[in-house]
Amino acid sequence: MRRLEIVAVEGLPEIRPGDRLAPLLARCADLADGDVVVVTQKVVSKAEGRMVAVDPGDPAALAALIEKESVRVLRRRGDLVISETGAGFVCANAGVDRSNVPDGYVTLLPLDADRSARRIRDGLRASAGVEVGVIVSDTFGRPWRRGVTDVAIGCAGIAAVVDLRGTADALGRTLEVTEVAVADELAAAAELVMGKATGVAAAVLRGVDPSWFRAASVRAEIVRTPGEDLFR
Amino acid sequence: MRRLEIVAVEGLPEIRPGDRLAPLLARCADLADGDVVVVTQKVVSKAEGRMVAVDPGDPAALAALIEKESVRVLRRRGDLVISETGAGFVCANAGVDRSNVPDGYVTLLPLDADRSARRIRDGLRASAGVEVGVIVSDTFGRPWRRGVTDVAIGCAGIAAVVDLRGTADALGRTLEVTEVAVADELAAAAELVMGKATGVAAAVLRGVDPSWFRAASVRAEIVRTPGEDLFR
Repeated sequence: MRRLEIVAVEGLPEIRPGDRLAPLLARCADLADGDVVVVTQKVVSKAEGRMVAVDPGDPAALAALIEKESVRVLRRRGDLVISETGAGFVCANAGVDRSNVPDGYVTLLPLDADRSARRIRDGLRASAGVEVGVIVSDTFGRPWRRGVTDVAIGCAGIAAVVDLRGTADALGRTLEVTEVAVADELAAAAELVMGKATGVAAAVLRGVDPSWFRAASVRAEIVRTPGEDLFR
Repeated sequence: MRRLEIVAVEGLPEIRPGDRLAPLLARCADLADGDVVVVTQKVVSKAEGRMVAVDPGDPAALAALIEKESVRVLRRRGDLVISETGAGFVCANAGVDRSNVPDGYVTLLPLDADRSARRIRDGLRASAGVEVGVIVSDTFGRPWRRGVTDVAIGCAGIAAVVDLRGTADALGRTLEVTEVAVADELAAAAELVMGKATGVAAAVLRGVDPSWFRAASVRAEIVRTPGEDLFR
């Protein structure tokens, strides 16, 4: 029987620039080899100092920051900008976000969230002696469907996409579909125990398919290039 | 500590038109009040007789069927059609799918997957005496990101979208973001234990937030109308 367990990591302190996340996660979570640790972008950005002071009474300053974080604007409606970031993510307001951030500040996305994930993974090996996969998650909207879901913006030691091409379906024929974005599904699953309002910023998944653990990258595996994308 | 458990439902027989899914699920899963049962579209469509014979050597027949299931074509590239179905889902090939279907047949999406979910939920109450949430899931691609993920196309007894507007974030301020598509996250989480190749077509989630259990509808809560959509 295949079984997966997801546990919220509780007790993390408010994260400040320069904090090392791995020892804090190791202290608050009971980790084992083969776990996947999902950490939200918000605490990763805070630890990496990706916070910027923005006058809450000056919408133009916020808009300028969103432009600066964008390499291409796809759509605008009122205050909302859907744009592509330097790392290739298409999301609202280029990932500039002020929820769960002290007043007068916003967070920016990590410069390289795959590297952020690798750093946490290496830190967990060093501080807790465990071999785990790490995913950095963020909350994105989608076209065509209301509501936000959490997706992976970085990963280390756990596949972003698992390629099922060439494997047989349950009736013995070759599958047509194919590449499953397991890192996004793991991020979404983790969000179910976190909740936006509770301040829980990480979760541990136990029971993940062992064959998915390998060197990996959200940017290389999940981010579509504009040329292959039908909606850019 | 918040904890969620996901267990694959194993041992379901090959589903045929007219089969009642609820008693089969009740026999193969150890269900309790407050569980969420995720059932893949494929078995729901088979049980509801949403299968059509299509000559595998006649691509034009398949293309005609995809057109018939579409109310609006958004993009085409080669054989791939991204279109909107009668129920408002935007997906590849209008949901017409031949994986895990006997040769010479394809499945169509359920006519009303919310109703399919309600029927399974009512059936589980009758056959197993349990009050559960039910989600019908399907596997969709996304713009901007490679790889497919499972999403909800129907639900019953469990929220599609949870509105966090008006609740406070961990720093005590009102949250800006807001509406979380929990049904999609539950569907994605369930996929992690199912796998395309193993023939496991359902999963049970235990530990889901009790406040999410209510009358609900994917079509009413998640499907965006063209007028509010920036990408149609």
